[in-house]
Amino acid sequence: MTGSVFGQLFRTTTWGESHGRAVGCVVEGCPSGLTLSESDIQKELDRRRPGGRLASSRKEKDKVEILSGIFENRVTGTPISLLIWNKGVDSKPYEKFKDLFRPGHADYTYFAKYGIRDWRGGGRASGRETVGRVAAGAIAKKILKNFGVSVGGYSKEIAGIKCDTSGGFEENIQRAESNELRCPDETAAKQVEEKVLEAREEGDSVGGIAEIVVRNAPAGLGEPVFNKLDAYLAYAIMSVPAVKGVEIGTGFEVSRMRGSEDNDPISVGKGDIKFETNNAGGILGGISNGEDIVLRAAIKPTPSISKTQKTANYKKMEEEEIEIKGRHDPCIVPRAIPVLEAMTAVVITDCMMMQRLIPRFV
Amino acid sequence: MTGSVFGQLFRTTTWGESHGRAVGCVVEGCPSGLTLSESDIQKELDRRRPGGRLASSRKEKDKVEILSGIFENRVTGTPISLLIWNKGVDSKPYEKFKDLFRPGHADYTYFAKYGIRDWRGGGRASGRETVGRVAAGAIAKKILKNFGVSVGGYSKEIAGIKCDTSGGFEENIQRAESNELRCPDETAAKQVEEKVLEAREEGDSVGGIAEIVVRNAPAGLGEPVFNKLDAYLAYAIMSVPAVKGVEIGTGFEVSRMRGSEDNDPISVGKGDIKFETNNAGGILGGISNGEDIVLRAAIKPTPSISKTQKTANYKKMEEEEIEIKGRHDPCIVPRAIPVLEAMTAVVITDCMMMQRLIPRFV
Amino acid sequence: MTGSVFGQLFRTTTWGESHGRAVGCVVEGCPSGLTLSESDIQKELDRRRPGGRLASSRKEKDKVEILSGIFENRVTGTPISLLIWNKGVDSKPYEKFKDLFRPGHADYTYFAKYGIRDWRGGGRASGRETVGRVAAGAIAKKILKNFGVSVGGYSKEIAGIKCDTSGGFEENIQRAESNELRCPDETAAKQVEEKVLEAREEGDSVGGIAEIVVRNAPAGLGEPVFNKLDAYLAYAIMSVPAVKGVEIGTGFEVSRMRGSEDNDPISVGKGDIKFETNNAGGILGGISNGEDIVLRAAIKPTPSISKTQKTANYKKMEEEEIEIKGRHDPCIVPRAIPVLEAMTAVVITDCMMMQRLIPRFV
Amino acid sequence: MTGSVFGQLFRTTTWGESHGRAVGCVVEGCPSGLTLSESDIQKELDRRRPGGRLASSRKEKDKVEILSGIFENRVTGTPISLLIWNKGVDSKPYEKFKDLFRPGHADYTYFAKYGIRDWRGGGRASGRETVGRVAAGAIAKKILKNFGVSVGGYSKEIAGIKCDTSGGFEENIQRAESNELRCPDETAAKQVEEKVLEAREEGDSVGGIAEIVVRNAPAGLGEPVFNKLDAYLAYAIMSVPAVKGVEIGTGFEVSRMRGSEDNDPISVGKGDIKFETNNAGGILGGISNGEDIVLRAAIKPTPSISKTQKTANYKKMEEEEIEIKGRHDPCIVPRAIPVLEAMTAVVITDCMMMQRLIPRFV
Repeated sequence: MTGSVFGQLFRTTTWGESHGRAVGCVVEGCPSGLTLSESDIQKELDRRRPGGRLASSRKEKDKVEILSGIFENRVTGTPISLLIWNKGVDSKPYEKFKDLFRPGHADYTYFAKYGIRDWRGGGRASGRETVGRVAAGAIAKKILKNFGVSVGGYSKEIAGIKCDTSGGFEENIQRAESNELRCPDETAAKQVEEKVLEAREEGDSVGGIAEIVVRNAPAGLGEPVFNKLDAYLAYAIMSVPAVKGVEIGTGFEVSRMRGSEDNDPISVGKGDIKFETNNAGGILGGISNGEDIVLRAAIKPTPSISKTQKTANYKKMEEEEIEIKGRHDPCIVPRAIPVLEAMTAVVITDCMMMQRLIPRFV
Repeated sequence: MTGSVFGQLFRTTTWGESHGRAVGCVVEGCPSGLTLSESDIQKELDRRRPGGRLASSRKEKDKVEILSGIFENRVTGTPISLLIWNKGVDSKPYEKFKDLFRPGHADYTYFAKYGIRDWRGGGRASGRETVGRVAAGAIAKKILKNFGVSVGGYSKEIAGIKCDTSGGFEENIQRAESNELRCPDETAAKQVEEKVLEAREEGDSVGGIAEIVVRNAPAGLGEPVFNKLDAYLAYAIMSVPAVKGVEIGTGFEVSRMRGSEDNDPISVGKGDIKFETNNAGGILGGISNGEDIVLRAAIKPTPSISKTQKTANYKKMEEEEIEIKGRHDPCIVPRAIPVLEAMTAVVITDCMMMQRLIPRFV
Repeated sequence: MTGSVFGQLFRTTTWGESHGRAVGCVVEGCPSGLTLSESDIQKELDRRRPGGRLASSRKEKDKVEILSGIFENRVTGTPISLLIWNKGVDSKPYEKFKDLFRPGHADYTYFAKYGIRDWRGGGRASGRETVGRVAAGAIAKKILKNFGVSVGGYSKEIAGIKCDTSGGFEENIQRAESNELRCPDETAAKQVEEKVLEAREEGDSVGGIAEIVVRNAPAGLGEPVFNKLDAYLAYAIMSVPAVKGVEIGTGFEVSRMRGSEDNDPISVGKGDIKFETNNAGGILGGISNGEDIVLRAAIKPTPSISKTQKTANYKKMEEEEIEIKGRHDPCIVPRAIPVLEAMTAVVITDCMMMQRLIPRFV
Repeated sequence: MTGSVFGQLFRTTTWGESHGRAVGCVVEGCPSGLTLSESDIQKELDRRRPGGRLASSRKEKDKVEILSGIFENRVTGTPISLLIWNKGVDSKPYEKFKDLFRPGHADYTYFAKYGIRDWRGGGRASGRETVGRVAAGAIAKKILKNFGVSVGGYSKEIAGIKCDTSGGFEENIQRAESNELRCPDETAAKQVEEKVLEAREEGDSVGGIAEIVVRNAPAGLGEPVFNKLDAYLAYAIMSVPAVKGVEIGTGFEVSRMRGSEDNDPISVGKGDIKFETNNAGGILGGISNGEDIVLRAAIKPTPSISKTQKTANYKKMEEEEIEIKGRHDPCIVPRAIPVLEAMTAVVITDCMMMQRLIPRFV
């Protein structure tokens, strides 16, 4: 695992900048024989694509092309190269910021690290980089589907408004996909929408919390002691832009609980071990226990806001004010969800392969 | 990075079970010329060792022996093998649980993964495994010290009692080390102590939150897009037993903030870029920005409690009740802190080496 | 390091099949600030391209496109994605072999491994895959040039005809590049040419030995004990299609020498350590010693021959005869040389980065 | 894979210096349920141990201790830590060389790399380091045995004397183990013995070639394009001290063959694909084809010789003469064979695990 290579047996290499020629990824280790077409990947890219009243107005077509690794609609076992041309790119609005470090962005840190920085649209640090992740995740999801494992996500909370998610996985997913904010709770969705529009009107943005659930993952996933399933998921999730916190199961709330409340009682059902509650979020000692794997990610408000902010011009080494106008999502949570799902699916696939649970499909 | 190997250039391999013959680690990639003795490591192991009224009564001597990699008190550049014999081990109390899965423990998941399980003292899943981490972290800390970088930690909250940490890093560290609970706030410390004793009396346990701070880390650490500094830290921290959540800087609270509140204003000070606030916790776009790196870990209540719990006997496939008597810390937070510091120090060292900031010392 | 990812700090991911849409690679870890253009890469691809009377008549344009990682002609530090479209591909001649395993080829083994096989032009197992390696190697060569390190190669022996290489590195390279067979000895070149033409006429092919030399590599490269420089080079070189042997310095001949003959005497010259001979090929104990790094690769005769061969039809599970007509190099040695140079350059670059000898260029 | 960590799923970390306190290794990824005891490992260590008239007189007991990863004689799936104390070490003879670089040794290169050097007995660069490899290899061999796969080796040639190995695998192995030189040919063994004794008498040493054969390995092992089975084996073999060349199957001789001679004809036998010859050495396109895997390693003459040699004193930066008296094998080939077998067994095990052919044993 390195800067741009992720995974052990199911390995994803991503590349590309926001305003470069294209973005893409290379997926290595996909089991041979899997049927795979561009439409399998396209549908996940479409879920990530901006759209609607609450989102950035950038028209990203994000049409994926498969360049290798597929023969007669099946995976051959060799690297799958996926490419998405960057279209409709306009770097001009970024030109006036090229000597400024946008607050909340990676402008300064990339400059500090590399001594050079592609200022067009945030370069590699742009959320656009996640296109490659979603493409890889679509392949992982297709693999998992063969084993009855599904990965889904929704907004748990936006701008302080909590969503009721007591309806269960299928219902939450279905409801979430029916509104732009991916809220699995219609009442909350309306309140959230108001908050988001209000923030946008004020040239501001809001954050939130996404919840990701994995259903039917087998027990035994994760490699102790460092590559625990929860550690691996935390790594994957925290690598998604704008995420500032990750928790598993009951998460931070566990810090206020007693052991007798937190420990999930174990019972025997149909000749199998079952857990009566799921505070553990499906993971004990870093290994999956067969229950739903549940995690949440804290997502910061979009850093690009049109409100006046204080920053520095590094050429002049002087302080300046900055106002970032343009097409920016006032809330990134709904678009982050497919990315978080993708990373989760990639981790689960890799762990199932490590556990030798995924044979080739031919 | 694998189950028991951690790091890219500064690599730690740990091994050992709670009631096996020994635990240890092999550290590879330590820059040559560093002066290093067993006492450098011993002092960190002593910080991790249980003791006092509030802790487990197991007498772990934890005397480290250096078996390789050092010549005339200096690191030669070859692997440093560290070994700590397990002493005073008594596996008898675990015998009656050998067919039971202790709730909140990894008993079931190890069994599901491996089909076999060393039930003595939790085996590899025991907190004792962290001895190897702390030993490796002691080396990392010594390296970092040469560059003025320090890593410290303290209890931020235990059993719902929040500690006042407004005093600043040095003061927090000093105060935390003066009490058994590692609370940097004496008033809170007393309240926490009461809660912990109360839990123990009731055969129960409590959880909490630890905060870890890195001072003087240079800007530019972390490898985008997957091996971001915050992702790498989340991976390291979540791999520590009992951790159920990780957050960076303002963390989960950021989900309720506006962009204009969360973005840290940038200013120019002494010819250098500075951030006026530190909501980012020292990391932007996955790369350190030169400010304090701040993270928090949610730690669950010790799962071993003497209260009656419901579980399953997997030999008989029947439900049973379990009461785990014996020497167990009613609160693991203070002992987890040196482990969290160690993992943090290891990550920072590795990232500084990746950034070519650590030459050999000779 | 995995099937299609190579390197530790300077990492290359390659992808693509012979008759797929394109081939390419992603290079991660290239130091920022390096000036790099498509022409830097193109010139190495052109050296690999077939041409002339003795070569395959396939017209591969191999025009490289840089898709990411470069901004204003300089490397930004993010992944460099390189793409070469496959043009002029005609899969029809392969159709009649689609149920046959061509002798000397990977047809059977890919089928055994994956259960499915892209039979068009050899798929991923085709020599065409090496385009991505040469592209990555071109970047490595450009990095090395900044440090005065050069990598060159030539035919040492073809079809049993040995080349006189006593003229020294510069002369050997220059002479080798002046003839199609990359022989650094004109007399030998003529004899070799005869042998090659003779083989072709008979529907057959010949093998040979290539020698690769690295000049001015610093002492200290290589990581003991497994990732020794010679081990790493052997790994890289043996991964090139058609290579069946690798030797360093005096190589296999050393097995017939006495220690007193083989050991290179050490002397002091200009305040520096020097070796009076170079049987070691520049590597002692797996670490470079500052002398020329010299290695040789044994390259098998092209397996595609038009002579009748015995093979099996796996659909019918019957034996059949096969004659592989078409455009195939009767000797692959000259075209393998740029590939071997590329792999060598990539290894040396990676080792120099591991040794922290390559800073960023800005 | 790093300096001291080897393997992807079956991972070995070795540590230790010749005259340090101990040497050892940590093996991670061993399938759970395997029965394993110290005697399984001891028997391979004993094969490596010096002894007899032709070998070093150092009395290495090499008694292995298992410190972790085993419970009730079975592998639990957690890291197996193996330790061998260094006994009977006498560093005094090395003291007079501490400012000299012994020709043919890694003294200078370690110094150049690390700026510091453990001069006692060669430190980490000593052949003693291979104890850890042999221990790991013993575990790999035990795993492979469960699948009918065996790895054996013998001297193919020593001091220019070739051994007749036409008797077949079982016979070669049996004969080789019956003499100190591991020659599978009694006539040659006697000639070799004379040559070795002659060299020793003259204060000199001889080299040779070892051949390693893997029987019954399944087809499909190896990961194209970089981690080919032959590339991986070349990496492993070349990392063994004193190896200067590696070849697969017909090896370097292939460079003088025609394609029609080299290509192994394919036939159908018992409903399965068979190869009529084995020039390929069991590997095509980097993937095993089900035939015997055959490789050879060129081993240089022991660099420690008592003949006078020219070298440099780096403290004084002056040339000096050196005579290395003491207990050194005049021919390292027989003792290298168990090490080469170990590395081969480790690679085959890892590749079988990558190919998901090794489940857990419980």
